[in-house]
Amino acid sequence: MKNKAITSRDVDYGKWYTDIVMAAKLASYSNVKGCIVIEPNGYAIWEMMMKILDAKFKETGHQNVSMPLLIPENLINKESELIQGFAPEVAWVTIGGQKQLEERLCIRPTSETLFSDYYSGVIESYRDLPKKYNQWCNILRWEKETRPFLRSREFLWQEGHTVHETSSEAEEETKKMLEIYKDFYENYMAIPALTGLKTESEKFAGAEYTYTVEALMYNGYSLQGGTSHYFGNKFSKAYDIKFLNRNNVREYAYQTSWGVSTRMIGALIMVHGDDRGLVLPPKIAPYQVVIIALGNDEEVEKVCYKLNAELNQNNIRSYIDNTDKSAGFKFAEAEVKGIPIRIEVGSRDLKNNVLTIVRRDNYEKEIIDINTDITNYVVNLCNTIQKDMFNKAKQRNDTKTFTCNTIEEVKTIMNSNPGYIKALWCGDYNCELKMKEIRGTKSRCIKDEEFKEGKCVVCGKDAKHMVYWGIQY
Amino acid sequence: MKNKAITSRDVDYGKWYTDIVMAAKLASYSNVKGCIVIEPNGYAIWEMMMKILDAKFKETGHQNVSMPLLIPENLINKESELIQGFAPEVAWVTIGGQKQLEERLCIRPTSETLFSDYYSGVIESYRDLPKKYNQWCNILRWEKETRPFLRSREFLWQEGHTVHETSSEAEEETKKMLEIYKDFYENYMAIPALTGLKTESEKFAGAEYTYTVEALMYNGYSLQGGTSHYFGNKFSKAYDIKFLNRNNVREYAYQTSWGVSTRMIGALIMVHGDDRGLVLPPKIAPYQVVIIALGNDEEVEKVCYKLNAELNQNNIRSYIDNTDKSAGFKFAEAEVKGIPIRIEVGSRDLKNNVLTIVRRDNYEKEIIDINTDITNYVVNLCNTIQKDMFNKAKQRNDTKTFTCNTIEEVKTIMNSNPGYIKALWCGDYNCELKMKEIRGTKSRCIKDEEFKEGKCVVCGKDAKHMVYWGIQY
Repeated sequence: MKNKAITSRDVDYGKWYTDIVMAAKLASYSNVKGCIVIEPNGYAIWEMMMKILDAKFKETGHQNVSMPLLIPENLINKESELIQGFAPEVAWVTIGGQKQLEERLCIRPTSETLFSDYYSGVIESYRDLPKKYNQWCNILRWEKETRPFLRSREFLWQEGHTVHETSSEAEEETKKMLEIYKDFYENYMAIPALTGLKTESEKFAGAEYTYTVEALMYNGYSLQGGTSHYFGNKFSKAYDIKFLNRNNVREYAYQTSWGVSTRMIGALIMVHGDDRGLVLPPKIAPYQVVIIALGNDEEVEKVCYKLNAELNQNNIRSYIDNTDKSAGFKFAEAEVKGIPIRIEVGSRDLKNNVLTIVRRDNYEKEIIDINTDITNYVVNLCNTIQKDMFNKAKQRNDTKTFTCNTIEEVKTIMNSNPGYIKALWCGDYNCELKMKEIRGTKSRCIKDEEFKEGKCVVCGKDAKHMVYWGIQY
Repeated sequence: MKNKAITSRDVDYGKWYTDIVMAAKLASYSNVKGCIVIEPNGYAIWEMMMKILDAKFKETGHQNVSMPLLIPENLINKESELIQGFAPEVAWVTIGGQKQLEERLCIRPTSETLFSDYYSGVIESYRDLPKKYNQWCNILRWEKETRPFLRSREFLWQEGHTVHETSSEAEEETKKMLEIYKDFYENYMAIPALTGLKTESEKFAGAEYTYTVEALMYNGYSLQGGTSHYFGNKFSKAYDIKFLNRNNVREYAYQTSWGVSTRMIGALIMVHGDDRGLVLPPKIAPYQVVIIALGNDEEVEKVCYKLNAELNQNNIRSYIDNTDKSAGFKFAEAEVKGIPIRIEVGSRDLKNNVLTIVRRDNYEKEIIDINTDITNYVVNLCNTIQKDMFNKAKQRNDTKTFTCNTIEEVKTIMNSNPGYIKALWCGDYNCELKMKEIRGTKSRCIKDEEFKEGKCVVCGKDAKHMVYWGIQY
């Protein structure tokens, strides 16, 4: 049973995506150009993401803070690469309290500026280090083309900003946070994560280097799903973050920043969704189980209630759909929302002492004895679904990853069945530009652990790096 | 032992307040005029507040969403009272993506506009009602005079916005949320809450009426600590929120909104703080217990570790201060941060098989047997401290609440020992203006359950209401 409101993904992938966003009531367009309303079903997923990640940040010694929304122009101008990178996409406040402001203020497109300015005032000696702060907040970037969750003028994210005594400690932090993101993608979102360094042209404005988490969507396009930057002391020099080191010498501190955003909701949709709607991995699903009664039977209702109570008591996120809609309608609604497990309770089933269980990810149906330990059953099934969803996505990644030796091969693949291209690169920006001519193919990340001597896929000169290339969202 | 960095509250109350904010590292001034950085100690308190309130909102059927930060000018202009109320204090974005915007956008000073615009698009029939949404977000109001937490250009808050079929259901919601706030103030923040209706001149721009939660500070000033508004169908008319009712007739919906903010952190400081710093009620304290070793003894360290592990296992928020500072310094730091209970572990004490426990709220010291069930002891002590803190604040409120029959009495009190004034009022705005001449005394709320016939305290005409008056923050 296909949800009528959803275009098939094989017919029009872009339309399929926005249809799911609307049909699952994750978000809707607002009357504020380029900005969305994140509705309860979408926000609940974001809350799950925040809860899991926030716990991981705290376990690794990070603390939350709140920095101002606005940045005075002179402050953001201090780090020249940053402002050059963000100038085209910031919004400026010029009037406040009915008066023209003497200095205009930009709405944060990212907060390196504010964190650095703050740190320069509070860090005096190595005893004040490390500082490992994070904030959950909204961000504004004046995007021209927008798409719910994937790219919108305002989005929600977390941004960690840390300061360290030594470059090695800061570099370790950069890697550690990348690993936390990778773990979150793979073990919670069930999305295989490709991680590695960005090339010089793709790194964050102002960073020494940028690690990225990339994810491959159903249509073979690539999504940058999170980044972790090492700044060295670029920002500490621009914002004068000096500290007295252990040898009693004042030196510039070393910094990092790292972030993931509501864009991850877009990744969930595009990796796992199907023509009936969203498919959520159990670990991220706001509700893991929906219980639906077939017909209006008192005994049925009692069983639903009992099942739900037992599951909730055991920390399984379950609910009964007891609206007055038809069972078929309820099935479709639970499917479009992506709830991993459906338990059907019918009077005929009860007579036979059974329940019907349906998996959202592959529609498999199982009839189980009513005396089954339901908590144990659901926990195991959640684990199985979680694993199966990851494996399915992994398998797709494997079939969509191609090794190419010539630019002609790249063209053929990207024009027919796009995916990741593994190809050697000489390190020259001009060769990246040539690749970009093929449907916007960009370097996704450098994977030098897979590097072997050979020739650049574009120019044929000696290669320096193995690069994964892809068409980006 | 008084913390040197803190001015005595009886010498300079304003300075005492900001000294605590800085010394306890709750917040610091930023280089963005009128905006603060909420530092880890301050943000951790806000996280506790969010966690407790968010659970209460969800228990009562509310869902979280995220609305845009920016409001197009034509949209905010639709409800004339709202824009008149907020026009002097909004900030306008006029440039985006390096271009002058055709229509300027204001940064939300509150989100009735956006919620109403959204609701008008998604509500069609009574089956879509009620809608009970909330968001946790940042807000901008171009205040001229600012003070950390109490009044700053940007602040964090939650704003609930609900839509109902009937006026009575909406009015019930307005009251229910007021009760949740009152409960939170009294039973979590240990702050007695005065609740009641705002007068016409003090109500929210655009509301039919406004309930308020007022709290009395140590210096006898009054703080508006939260509000709950009934809108009737003012906004639904301005934004065209119509629904098909149960009689198949299209009618305007009924709305409410309600909010509390980071200002509550200011209330905590000003109600409970003393000359040594912050004093936190155990239910709100990010850490309830600090364990401090006296000296560098291996056995002492082991006991600290064991105590801490046991408390944490039993969901008591405890930590060991194992920095290399002196014990005296650690005591002072725990005091300035307001941690409710200090456990001292010393080698001499261990020889006598005892521990020393010190309460933050009244400095009472108790020597307990080392074999005491520490979890049980701490749980009980937390309950006692929570209750004692409330009672102390309540007692202060009682001694600072004065019944006045003449404006001369009001003057004498407000000029010497301000507090709440209970006085009858005729309902005339001019009489409110006269009261305002006395150090800015304003009506805090109407308490008609305490009304008895009599004369207006200002003009001597027949009174219509009993009003609590106060000097406001």
